[in-house]
Amino acid sequence: MKIIIVGATGTLGKKVTEAFAQKHEIIRVGNTKGDVQVDITNETSIKNMFELIGPFDALISTSGKGPFAPVNQLTGEVFKSGLLDKLLGQINLVLIGQHYINKGGSFTLTSGILSERPVASGSVLSTINGGLNAFILAAAREIGSGIRINAVSPNVVEDSPAFFDSFPGEIPVTMEKVIKAYEKSVLGIITGEVIKVY
Amino acid sequence: MKIIIVGATGTLGKKVTEAFAQKHEIIRVGNTKGDVQVDITNETSIKNMFELIGPFDALISTSGKGPFAPVNQLTGEVFKSGLLDKLLGQINLVLIGQHYINKGGSFTLTSGILSERPVASGSVLSTINGGLNAFILAAAREIGSGIRINAVSPNVVEDSPAFFDSFPGEIPVTMEKVIKAYEKSVLGIITGEVIKVY
Repeated sequence: MKIIIVGATGTLGKKVTEAFAQKHEIIRVGNTKGDVQVDITNETSIKNMFELIGPFDALISTSGKGPFAPVNQLTGEVFKSGLLDKLLGQINLVLIGQHYINKGGSFTLTSGILSERPVASGSVLSTINGGLNAFILAAAREIGSGIRINAVSPNVVEDSPAFFDSFPGEIPVTMEKVIKAYEKSVLGIITGEVIKVY
Repeated sequence: MKIIIVGATGTLGKKVTEAFAQKHEIIRVGNTKGDVQVDITNETSIKNMFELIGPFDALISTSGKGPFAPVNQLTGEVFKSGLLDKLLGQINLVLIGQHYINKGGSFTLTSGILSERPVASGSVLSTINGGLNAFILAAAREIGSGIRINAVSPNVVEDSPAFFDSFPGEIPVTMEKVIKAYEKSVLGIITGEVIKVY
């Protein structure tokens, strides 16, 4: 299977890439590193990425940023920067990628636990993740051509200790569990599902 | 109670306004009509609205648009127009309004059923509504000063027959039920809740 992994050089993406590379052809996509570079906030950049890579069977996105800030200090501009990055950026990977993906292919995006378990300073990411989960639900049912769309929604992961203090009460999940979720989406038959890893 | 209703001149807002006007002081806000005008996609316009109105006890928003389009025809630009309107526009009413609202006041935004029951051409609104519901959850727990934040998430309403065909299988809800949901949010004690009317 030819699999594009956008965010392949990140903390999560690196491990996901290692796991899928054992049996599949992987195109590693990063912001500045990897086999191909993309800026997911730029539609032209996304289109160029797909033109360069050509037809593919699956796309996994572990990419996208959103700002952490207390709600009483948040401005619309800061909020918007997150919406246009982790939310619209990942959605654009689907909207543009649907015209390049092979029949029966799959998209797997990454949301996160904050959609339903908020933490301090996390309201932008809660909004982004809630939006992504709802997008999956709607888009998967409409897209057709046997194309599947899911999201993996992880808790804070064991490889990101810098975030542990921001998620009080949460037990960091193992990378093994998170990788299994991506495998379920890419190699399984489900669609329109948010696979919670927490 | 001094209540700002943004979207007071719309189908839903008109009825909500009538109900609250019986016992409260209402500032009717519309895009082009009403006591005060606002463009919720413009932060300066929102700030001007609050400066003009001064301190208030509750804000209800029944405003914000999102485009209907099949996912295979959707572009990032069209998607973005919805995110910046019904999603970020309503969020900005809270982000900016928090600096004008009286202690113990409340914000009530409007999301909708598409966050969990998708329909054809509705993926942008699903995303918007899912994002709004998650925002409510996170922001309400962090905002402080006794300020409450909720969302009313209605099904298609009886007063919007033009939308009935887009929601197959859904039984349109009465305006009375929807108005009661806004009353629960504004006059009750709940916070961080999505009040589903379906």
